[in-house]
Amino acid sequence: MGGAEFFHMPGQAPRLEMPARCRYPRNMRIAILTFDGYNELDSFVILGLLNRLNHLGWRAEITSPSSQVTSMNGVTVVAQQPLEFANEADAVIFGSGIYTRAIAEDMGKRGAVLDRLQLDPLRQLIGAQCSGSLLLARLGLLADAPACTDLTTKPWLVQAGVRVLDEPFHARGPIATAGGCLASQYLAAWLMWSRAGEEAARQALFYAAPVGEKEAYVDRLMDRVRPFITAV
Amino acid sequence: MGGAEFFHMPGQAPRLEMPARCRYPRNMRIAILTFDGYNELDSFVILGLLNRLNHLGWRAEITSPSSQVTSMNGVTVVAQQPLEFANEADAVIFGSGIYTRAIAEDMGKRGAVLDRLQLDPLRQLIGAQCSGSLLLARLGLLADAPACTDLTTKPWLVQAGVRVLDEPFHARGPIATAGGCLASQYLAAWLMWSRAGEEAARQALFYAAPVGEKEAYVDRLMDRVRPFITAV
Repeated sequence: MGGAEFFHMPGQAPRLEMPARCRYPRNMRIAILTFDGYNELDSFVILGLLNRLNHLGWRAEITSPSSQVTSMNGVTVVAQQPLEFANEADAVIFGSGIYTRAIAEDMGKRGAVLDRLQLDPLRQLIGAQCSGSLLLARLGLLADAPACTDLTTKPWLVQAGVRVLDEPFHARGPIATAGGCLASQYLAAWLMWSRAGEEAARQALFYAAPVGEKEAYVDRLMDRVRPFITAV
Repeated sequence: MGGAEFFHMPGQAPRLEMPARCRYPRNMRIAILTFDGYNELDSFVILGLLNRLNHLGWRAEITSPSSQVTSMNGVTVVAQQPLEFANEADAVIFGSGIYTRAIAEDMGKRGAVLDRLQLDPLRQLIGAQCSGSLLLARLGLLADAPACTDLTTKPWLVQAGVRVLDEPFHARGPIATAGGCLASQYLAAWLMWSRAGEEAARQALFYAAPVGEKEAYVDRLMDRVRPFITAV
């Protein structure tokens, strides 16, 4: 029975139950912060996965401090958004790269990238991948939460006073971190589940998962982030 | 004991055993064929993983028919190599994208992309990801081998007379196909294991795997491609 006819059935009040996904915001704009020396896996895995929700109005974009940035392997990409887009976005992901430590150390110096960011965890979901966790720490966004990162960044994060977990993913409220390039799949799963619901997240991941093992693959991703999902 | 002193020890013939990885070629050049409308996961997951072997002289590069290409989600990337690089490369990976079917159908028309390729499976490893399998079929490279692809491409590949497997990865000799964006991890594992050996492949994947579950993650990737590894 189609929705239109249903609403015109005489003698019966229309049911106005909203489908579950209406509880969630639409048109999520997501900044994938990507700097010179970026790691392709860390920026593009999550970008590709999040944009699987474009039918819900989601849009994840490469967001950079210059008009183009070049990766650790020489891949030059044109920025889709300027750095300041991150301040307006609904979610912000810090990618990783080989110059992250220098970016963290430059904070406070004239023209420093991090000084152009005014993020707001009351309004935004904020995640970081591998060395991106160092930038979260530098911005004071980790507070006293433990964090995940890659093996190379770990000592720097420890030096910054952060407790580093031997785990691929951790979130406290609106702040999440992931360690190991391919853990970016968890960051994507957490963000989609948090803002589009479990079913939409599963469908998006299902599409991208390897053929013939999709159920098990998606279950593994969802199980990992489940403890960190807070009710909308 | 250092190698130099060893060779000058009097009265003893030098042992000339080569370390295992010398059995493998060095300086592998890999073309990641990337067209307008490309899928970011399909090009960048394998690019990021293969370049983890740069200490062995490996180099995987975005290879395109124009100086820049724009993804299905609007990410413009500057080509690192022109299309014809694929003809000289040691390995060629066909990425996936939203215009693959048109590229396949254009073959034989004036200026068609596929007509600029002269690949040689006797000399090159050749892999395809998702809709890229359709291009392998069109080029006659699949012969009568079955293939993997994504759910969208499957009917087109069936129409082209190819038996499509409900599996994420398959290889016959030097030709491999993967289905589902994230199955590109298998394609990378197969290529690294085939041309750099099991240990080098494991190390590269280990680096990229999620922290805290690296062993199990890498085992899963390696187990999937193991049946398709042929001795060097």
